[in-house]
Amino acid sequence: MNELEFIQSIAAAQPAVQQEDILLGMGDDCAVLRKGDGRVLLFSMDTLVEGVHFDRAFHPPELLGHKVIDVNASDIAAMGGSPGQVLFAAGLPPGFDREWMRTFNQGLLQACQHYGCVLIGGDTVASPGGYSFTITIIGAMKEADVLYRHGAQAGDVVFASGELGLAAGGLALLRAGIAHPDFASLCARHLHPEARVRLGTRLAASGLVHAMMDSSDGLATDLAHICTASGLGARIFSEKIQLAQALQRAAALTGADALDWALCGGEDFELLFTAAPQAEPALREFARDCSLPITAIGVMDRGEGVRLVQGDGRPDRILSYQGYDHFSPGKRR
Amino acid sequence: MNELEFIQSIAAAQPAVQQEDILLGMGDDCAVLRKGDGRVLLFSMDTLVEGVHFDRAFHPPELLGHKVIDVNASDIAAMGGSPGQVLFAAGLPPGFDREWMRTFNQGLLQACQHYGCVLIGGDTVASPGGYSFTITIIGAMKEADVLYRHGAQAGDVVFASGELGLAAGGLALLRAGIAHPDFASLCARHLHPEARVRLGTRLAASGLVHAMMDSSDGLATDLAHICTASGLGARIFSEKIQLAQALQRAAALTGADALDWALCGGEDFELLFTAAPQAEPALREFARDCSLPITAIGVMDRGEGVRLVQGDGRPDRILSYQGYDHFSPGKRR
Repeated sequence: MNELEFIQSIAAAQPAVQQEDILLGMGDDCAVLRKGDGRVLLFSMDTLVEGVHFDRAFHPPELLGHKVIDVNASDIAAMGGSPGQVLFAAGLPPGFDREWMRTFNQGLLQACQHYGCVLIGGDTVASPGGYSFTITIIGAMKEADVLYRHGAQAGDVVFASGELGLAAGGLALLRAGIAHPDFASLCARHLHPEARVRLGTRLAASGLVHAMMDSSDGLATDLAHICTASGLGARIFSEKIQLAQALQRAAALTGADALDWALCGGEDFELLFTAAPQAEPALREFARDCSLPITAIGVMDRGEGVRLVQGDGRPDRILSYQGYDHFSPGKRR
Repeated sequence: MNELEFIQSIAAAQPAVQQEDILLGMGDDCAVLRKGDGRVLLFSMDTLVEGVHFDRAFHPPELLGHKVIDVNASDIAAMGGSPGQVLFAAGLPPGFDREWMRTFNQGLLQACQHYGCVLIGGDTVASPGGYSFTITIIGAMKEADVLYRHGAQAGDVVFASGELGLAAGGLALLRAGIAHPDFASLCARHLHPEARVRLGTRLAASGLVHAMMDSSDGLATDLAHICTASGLGARIFSEKIQLAQALQRAAALTGADALDWALCGGEDFELLFTAAPQAEPALREFARDCSLPITAIGVMDRGEGVRLVQGDGRPDRILSYQGYDHFSPGKRR
């Protein structure tokens, strides 16, 4: 049983319950509850565990505190909403480092300010296995604007914001102890990713986007979710995946493959979204306004799963669900 | 730094932010957000960690799954609200027991049904230190009915529902391996406490109660919160604390003090509330309707902290903040 199967097994076991306020329960970046006045509340929950999601040896506490908010705010951005409130559960090991936690909390509160949200509650518990941080984030937006995973249409162009693979490259460099200013943007992406709230709200309000999510588990896995939810397939064009020079150098230095990072690396927290081809010029303008490039990397089709079109006569590669799985980190799923 | 100080240090570090929807952030059983139409949403978050909050050696997974919802539903009950939705973050150790988790999930879903709430989201992560479960619960109620900790008035009677100390007694028996049908109610209180949602909503709707919370950290600590929040003191009358016969026998068997369990033991999840003396007959009727006794155990006064009036010419005992602290389990705080 991997992470996906575990979540699905609980969802499947739940008896069908009717609550008219719940527009969507499990199965997307956020749950969606009707608030009244044509608005909804968005809910997401994410846990970061020491030794699994972060390494204190190279993760400064202030940036880690910021990151626990970043990754949750990204789930709100992925629906097109704005973060509003945060609950924070801290698991602290025996004899935890008070100064380290003080700095962590500063980063967390700075991130709350950055995204315009307020810490409203939480819990603190002893955690024998090390530091563990769980955030529940609450966002809000117009009901009519919510962007789900299930809205993609055959013929849609698949877009990704920013550059993919940076977080995986940055993590590999940090683990290898390679610090050089040339790689600052890669390392920063792992240590302190920016949730794409501004672009997300802009895209949602435009009415031009059909489906959206964030790239948290890697393009291969994340786009597969859009495919499954929308009952479609997707083709990604290898030559459209931009590999930054620094990313290629980082791959060479660490013996990794830059394209693999871009396709299967997680935690970039960019936005993946689909829209009709004719929407592209308008979408590019929104992206320019947000100082964040977007790239058309593929198309939705009536096939199944995510396939990489490699060109040069090479056969297509099946990508679906080859992202990162916390329960089988060595294994692609 | 103990649990209380840690939470206060974050709250204090947060810059003053104005969000008109937030009626209350940190500092009570739940955060309170205005929903519109005169209603509010309540938010609470609680984590249970293996080896700290539960012992798998004697905690059946189905009851533990139920309990993670019970303890969170109790926070909603403590404000007078009704549970509505749940988010669930599971930390699972390497090679976790799938059958155990399946049964745990059944208990969790049964509890959701029991309290009328729906699981709408969550997260699953690897947890090297053992099982760890975090719940965020969302409740709802009328804004005008919300019962805070800060509303107590001098001269109010302090009431407690049910019997105090059962959970502490049950835990001591379970740890000692003493299982006997006579102690079933004590053990059940630790394994599977009932959130007092029905009584809580009834009390809130009555308009007769001034302050309320649940007894999760022990009467001494919990009532001290009401005192601090209300700027008052409280006297508890030793002879009013009912010690069930089974509790006294359990104390004798395990070499503990039954009164100490009732005053300082945590996790009973009963309701503590204050009201004017003339409200007592009406409150007793609500309690009877809910098949749950209530006891007048003390009074609020203009003093400071919680004092136990022992009678028999013995001096009063200072009780404030002598409940359970997860960071200093050997030490009374």
